[in-house]
Amino acid sequence: MKMLYDLAKKRKTVRRFKKEKPPLEDLIYSLKVANEAPSGMNAQPWRFLIVEDEKLKGQIRRVCERSEKTFYENVRGRLKEWLDEKRFTWRKPFLKEAPYLLLVFSEKSAPYSRESVWLAVGYLLLALEEKGLGSVPYTPPDFREVEKLVNTPSELRLEVILPVGYPDDPKPKYPRNEVIVRYNTF
Amino acid sequence: MKMLYDLAKKRKTVRRFKKEKPPLEDLIYSLKVANEAPSGMNAQPWRFLIVEDEKLKGQIRRVCERSEKTFYENVRGRLKEWLDEKRFTWRKPFLKEAPYLLLVFSEKSAPYSRESVWLAVGYLLLALEEKGLGSVPYTPPDFREVEKLVNTPSELRLEVILPVGYPDDPKPKYPRNEVIVRYNTF
Repeated sequence: MKMLYDLAKKRKTVRRFKKEKPPLEDLIYSLKVANEAPSGMNAQPWRFLIVEDEKLKGQIRRVCERSEKTFYENVRGRLKEWLDEKRFTWRKPFLKEAPYLLLVFSEKSAPYSRESVWLAVGYLLLALEEKGLGSVPYTPPDFREVEKLVNTPSELRLEVILPVGYPDDPKPKYPRNEVIVRYNTF
Repeated sequence: MKMLYDLAKKRKTVRRFKKEKPPLEDLIYSLKVANEAPSGMNAQPWRFLIVEDEKLKGQIRRVCERSEKTFYENVRGRLKEWLDEKRFTWRKPFLKEAPYLLLVFSEKSAPYSRESVWLAVGYLLLALEEKGLGSVPYTPPDFREVEKLVNTPSELRLEVILPVGYPDDPKPKYPRNEVIVRYNTF
């Protein structure tokens, strides 16, 4: 059986979405899958915020693009070359165009909180794919501005914004290298 | 379709393993699934080391248990209560008993390297489950000792040790809370 490989291979990052709004229950399904992930002390340190409000999505887009402008003015080296090659800019329209923004937070006090939440994000992305939903794990240069916009409690930390919707992005999946495996020692 | 939910729900942390050694190709399969995960700059910053050598597994167990003894002497508060309640001690026999130890590293220089690797670990654990293999995401108190034992190149950082084998652990999966979802703002 290699069902998971087929699902993982099919899953690509999507930055353009159809207008049609997917049923909320498909998002909730993906959160339930994520909730089954292991975590340090079984603390389940992930918290989810689903943003549907158009005005708030617009505000989130504006504060992210403000910090992206600064980021793009200062980025150098390998990352700058890659961003230019892929034609990325400070504009992040998907933050407004996606029908949902799924904000994922970690509870700061839990042990291995960040590691556990990102592990759960792996579960989550695969579940979205299973439901035919696309996303991009978007990490803004300045999380604090977004945290303020949504009244984030001090014990939580925003880890990633997942714009979610039906994919409308012709861009192919970026190629993967062969898996590099070593045995016993390097 | 909720195939992924069933797989995720079934997947529990396993700390005891059958002696029987699973085929190496099932581990390689899970690495190929992990390799399909998204990553910052598509840098695919994960590196894998499969330890099968019995002597080396024994050494890894010894250095981990040495730092665990110190950890267990000093742990306090909520984490101590939880560890005591679950009857955990500094002894980590699974580091020797599991037929394989899968060490997962992140490439320090890649953007969002740690987040990307832990996301890929989520893919990996689900793939192991699909193949009927069990594991526990084990994070030793002192990574450096283990890194030295396996000659880890300076550009890599050990993120987690995954003992892998056929499950022989009667312990039930720890219960999950209801998923907490908020809308628009906290």
